[in-house]
Formats: sequence, C-alpha cells, structure tokens
Amino acid sequence: MKGSFITFEGIDGSGKTTQLNKLAESLRNSGRDVLVTCEPGGTPLGKEIRKAFLETKQDVEPLAELLLFAADRAQHVQHLIRPALAAGRIVISDRYADATVAYQGAGRGFDLELVERVIAIATNGLKPDLTLFFDIDPHQAVDRMAFRGEHKMNRMDLESLEFYTRVREGYLKIAAAEPKRFRVIDAGRSVDEIAEETLEIVKENLARV
Amino acid sequence: MKGSFITFEGIDGSGKTTQLNKLAESLRNSGRDVLVTCEPGGTPLGKEIRKAFLETKQDVEPLAELLLFAADRAQHVQHLIRPALAAGRIVISDRYADATVAYQGAGRGFDLELVERVIAIATNGLKPDLTLFFDIDPHQAVDRMAFRGEHKMNRMDLESLEFYTRVREGYLKIAAAEPKRFRVIDAGRSVDEIAEETLEIVKENLARV
Repeated sequence: MKGSFITFEGIDGSGKTTQLNKLAESLRNSGRDVLVTCEPGGTPLGKEIRKAFLETKQDVEPLAELLLFAADRAQHVQHLIRPALAAGRIVISDRYADATVAYQGAGRGFDLELVERVIAIATNGLKPDLTLFFDIDPHQAVDRMAFRGEHKMNRMDLESLEFYTRVREGYLKIAAAEPKRFRVIDAGRSVDEIAEETLEIVKENLARV
Repeated sequence: MKGSFITFEGIDGSGKTTQLNKLAESLRNSGRDVLVTCEPGGTPLGKEIRKAFLETKQDVEPLAELLLFAADRAQHVQHLIRPALAAGRIVISDRYADATVAYQGAGRGFDLELVERVIAIATNGLKPDLTLFFDIDPHQAVDRMAFRGEHKMNRMDLESLEFYTRVREGYLKIAAAEPKRFRVIDAGRSVDEIAEETLEIVKENLARV
C-alpha cells in the first residue's frame, strides 16, 4: 500500500489554504483517508522552531533561516509524512520544498544550488507526487490579504510586492521544468471554480497511481 | 588585522568550561581582547533554538537535530564569530563543529559523510585556528558531574557511559587526523596544572600567528 503526497503552493494571499480545506473535505466525503498538514510548523518541533524564528530579537542570517526550515522539514518528513504515506493515506501539505526554492531562492536571492543541496538533505529525497500551484497576480494577493485583515505583520509579510513577484516567477520556473508534477491553477477566479478544477486534477492523478 | 579562533572540546564533565574561563581571564590580564562564546546557544537565535529542541514534547529526528545545530552554528558564525575575528579579537568558543562530529557522528552513529556535509554548509568553511580537547576518562567525567550536582537531566545527559566512550573516541580520531590544529590535553589532573598547559599552548599558538 502506498499513499499519495500532494503539496499546495502559492504566494501569500493566493487562496491555497481555502482550496486545501475544500479538497480535503471532498476527498473525505468520497471515503478517502486524508492527512492535512503544513510547512513550516507541521509538527510540535516545527511549531517550536517557527516560534524561535519569529520571536528572536535578532536578525536571522539567511543561511540560518534556510537550515531552520530544513530542520522543520526533516522532522515533518520523517515523523509525519513518511509514516502516513506508508499507511496508504493521502497527505496534503500546505507548502513544502518548492516554497523554499521560490521564497529563499528566487525571492530572497539565496544561492539556488545551496538551497537545492539543503533541500535534498532535509527531504531525504521525498518528492511530492503532485504539486498544485495557485497562481495569482501579486497585486491581487496583497489586496486580498489587506481586505481580509489577514495581513499579520511578521518577517515574511514585511517583504515587498516586488518580492512576491520574484517568488511567483520562481514557482513558474519550477512549473516549466517539471510540468508533470507541478500544475499551475489560475487562482484569480471564484473559489468554486478553482475548487472544481483542483478536485478534477487530483482525482485524475489519484486514478493514475 | 586578523583575530584568532580557538575552540574548546571535551565530553560533558571534562572541566573544559572552567578552563575556558581561566584562559580568558589570563589573556585579558595580559591585555588581549577576548570574546567568550559557546555552542549551542551562542546567539539569541541559538538560545531560542536550544529551547525549541529541549522543550518539544516530541522525539526529535536525528536529521532534524543535526539541522537545528547547523542553524545555530550558521547564525553563530555569521553574526558573532566572523565579525569578531574581522575586528582582530580572540574568539574562544565552548564547543564548535568537532562536537557535532563527535556527538552526532561517533556518539549517535549518524552518517559521518552527511554530518560533514552539513557542517561545511553551516560553517561556510570557517575552521578554528586551534582546538583544545580536554581528555578525560568517561567514568571520571560522570563521577564529576554527579559530585558537582551538575547533572541536569536533558536529552543529552540521559545518554549512557558507552555513549561518552564513543564520543571520546570520535574526538581522538579527529586528533589523529589533524594533530596540528587539534591538541589533546590530559584533563584528569588538577585544575591549575591543566590551566598552565592550556595557557602555554595558546600563547605559543598566538605567537605563531
């Protein structure tokens, strides 16, 4: 028995978390065993790491940040994701390794080769079976966050619109390189339209396994 | 102007921290500018990471632990050690990368090649100019810790005497491989005798730079 590992990616405000919850509900309604999780902070250790990162009064060096995310991911993969996959469950993670490539690599300009090396160590080679990228115009995303009052001020949110534009381009580069695994969904439409396409792609993918 | 980077290593209970403080005092008395620091937890971020590690209610995966120490080290090197060395100071750190090789590698049996790869990333190539290993019989070290009431129960201290024996052997392997940088000091003697030899080795090393 082998489960399926699906990851959701997108810039902040892309609506991916809403879509993730809707997809999990649909799959559960059709009798599937679904584990919903997230990065960073998908495990108790990950939550402590996230707290450490956000609460420190000191500037966090980019390399230290990269390694903290890697520690979070290593714990997440070994402790939660792999056992769930081994038990045949569908694991849906709100962000995974592609987020590090897009945010730390493309967004913050950190050496991509080093980013990839650290990801390979942290994931121990575990790649998603399917990644859905919820693509939205960065202007629209920022508007959405402001409208919903969801714009909590943390280190990441202080970054500029230009940053989100670079992050989006980073994601689109992955899409171009791995079109089979990495699917781009137009997230500028209504919640229901997006949910329908999402479910369709996931069902198709699960049928293929 | 280029400073000097000295690290102190040894198993718990080897007396290295006492010696470190004595050495720093001697050097300061002779007019040297000394920065005393430690790993893990040498920076505010490092302290938060250490707290995250010790306080989590969950077993920490060995790989996650390795990456947490690496994040602590990256912050320590970039934020504290490199700037101090650039300012011409003498930096003395209570543990550094060799501790990871000895504890996670030799002690816990983690893949040494992977340990070395992660260290290379975290340190960005910064090696100590001099490392002093305070060598003590693991039985004597455990007795000392118990006598001083210093045996706080944390994850590491729960490890067995056999563990400390493996750690010691790990350190001695480094000594054999890098005899110039890595000096072994017999830490089974009196505090004053050890302090005298320590100061002598350090002075000799500083004179050479």
